[in-house]
Amino acid sequence: MPDGTVRFHDKEGQPIYHFMGCSTMSEYSVIAEISCAKISVDAPLDRACLFGCGVSTGLGAVWNTCKVEVNSTVAVFGLGAVGLAVIQGAKMAGASRIIAVDTNAGKFEAATSIGATDTVDSSKLEKPVQQHIAGVLTKWGVDYSFDCTGNTDVMRAALECSHRGWGTSCVIGVAACGQEISTRPFQLVTGRCWKGTAFGGFKSRKDVPVLVQKNLDGELPIDHFVTHEFIGVNSTNDAIEALHGGGCLRAVVKY
Amino acid sequence: MPDGTVRFHDKEGQPIYHFMGCSTMSEYSVIAEISCAKISVDAPLDRACLFGCGVSTGLGAVWNTCKVEVNSTVAVFGLGAVGLAVIQGAKMAGASRIIAVDTNAGKFEAATSIGATDTVDSSKLEKPVQQHIAGVLTKWGVDYSFDCTGNTDVMRAALECSHRGWGTSCVIGVAACGQEISTRPFQLVTGRCWKGTAFGGFKSRKDVPVLVQKNLDGELPIDHFVTHEFIGVNSTNDAIEALHGGGCLRAVVKY
Repeated sequence: MPDGTVRFHDKEGQPIYHFMGCSTMSEYSVIAEISCAKISVDAPLDRACLFGCGVSTGLGAVWNTCKVEVNSTVAVFGLGAVGLAVIQGAKMAGASRIIAVDTNAGKFEAATSIGATDTVDSSKLEKPVQQHIAGVLTKWGVDYSFDCTGNTDVMRAALECSHRGWGTSCVIGVAACGQEISTRPFQLVTGRCWKGTAFGGFKSRKDVPVLVQKNLDGELPIDHFVTHEFIGVNSTNDAIEALHGGGCLRAVVKY
Repeated sequence: MPDGTVRFHDKEGQPIYHFMGCSTMSEYSVIAEISCAKISVDAPLDRACLFGCGVSTGLGAVWNTCKVEVNSTVAVFGLGAVGLAVIQGAKMAGASRIIAVDTNAGKFEAATSIGATDTVDSSKLEKPVQQHIAGVLTKWGVDYSFDCTGNTDVMRAALECSHRGWGTSCVIGVAACGQEISTRPFQLVTGRCWKGTAFGGFKSRKDVPVLVQKNLDGELPIDHFVTHEFIGVNSTNDAIEALHGGGCLRAVVKY
């Protein structure tokens, strides 16, 4: 909690900690006042919950952090829920070309159905993926690229496949503790920009209600992110196990 | 040359190569048409020449690449001619605080006289310079930082002393061949932006004449960059030797 306390204590008064500052895994929770966003009472909670993190993050990386314009070219690395949200956001922003990259070809159908124009299985390439995107698929690279993997080698590839002179690359994935990104400074001196985003630059209190309302109004479909549903708090571990499988985007636990 | 040929041949017809795509070290030269900028005939050539590279680069990094705004806070690493040009550009842009960093305290007088508000001898600090700037001199870091050293460790320090949420750091220095920059991706995810610039984002044909005119009009003084002057093409090596000394900003050779 922002004030250094914890959300919960057990019946002996010992603190119960939670994960990454946000998770609750419970039917009722204690949250800081600043963390509370008032959404439409009409919003189904088993969909509104998606705006609490990854989906918003991917959309916001495109709309807020990078401000992708009409007719931009985009590359997206990692086709989990965040990567698909980036594709969806880029499509809505009017990108003319959206290159979807993953090492699991099973992800490509969902990516294409949501707006990807090209798919790349980077595990099958003989050259580094950045040289395939900037050199084969495009001449000089894409206007915007997004890392949605948390892999620092992929972050570098994403930067290096962006267009010299103006390409912008955005780190969204969270890397393992202690890992570092690197590149030759020449990549920046020749006009690339390396950014990152947390929660897509949205302010939760102000912006989550707007996202929820867009979904209610039919402007922002998100049902396709929910591949697994579970009933009851006891199934929390099943939901987390499902997330570890390659076929799961988001697992929703209904209470 | 852009077409793969060289500027000069000796009397046996053998090619004479030149340095970094731009230098001539001669009274007459062969240049590509696109490299030619027409400046005012009133411009003294022993001053106009400064706009050919470093001074323009420093000014443009501030004005074009980073677009430093009024009341911004700025940190400048490396107080050679490029670093001083960054300070001058930041002062002209209305920066409220300009922190000048070098390992040679002999550079501080020039930096202060041109607009620096704070000086830091990073060789005398007990903690990393980024923790001194973001932590001691400022609470959370500066709005804009500039590397004018070519040292990849300094490039990292410059990024990491920029303000989380919106800080932008610009690589201007040219690193040694094969060297890489690195940082934790968390530095970007928390809202910093890592950029670079070549020739400060100016287009030479269009913009150099404007810079020269500003100088002629008294809006952009540059005499302070010329610390050494030599006469005749034979003194070229003396000029280069002077540049290696810590006290030289720019050495001008008059023909």
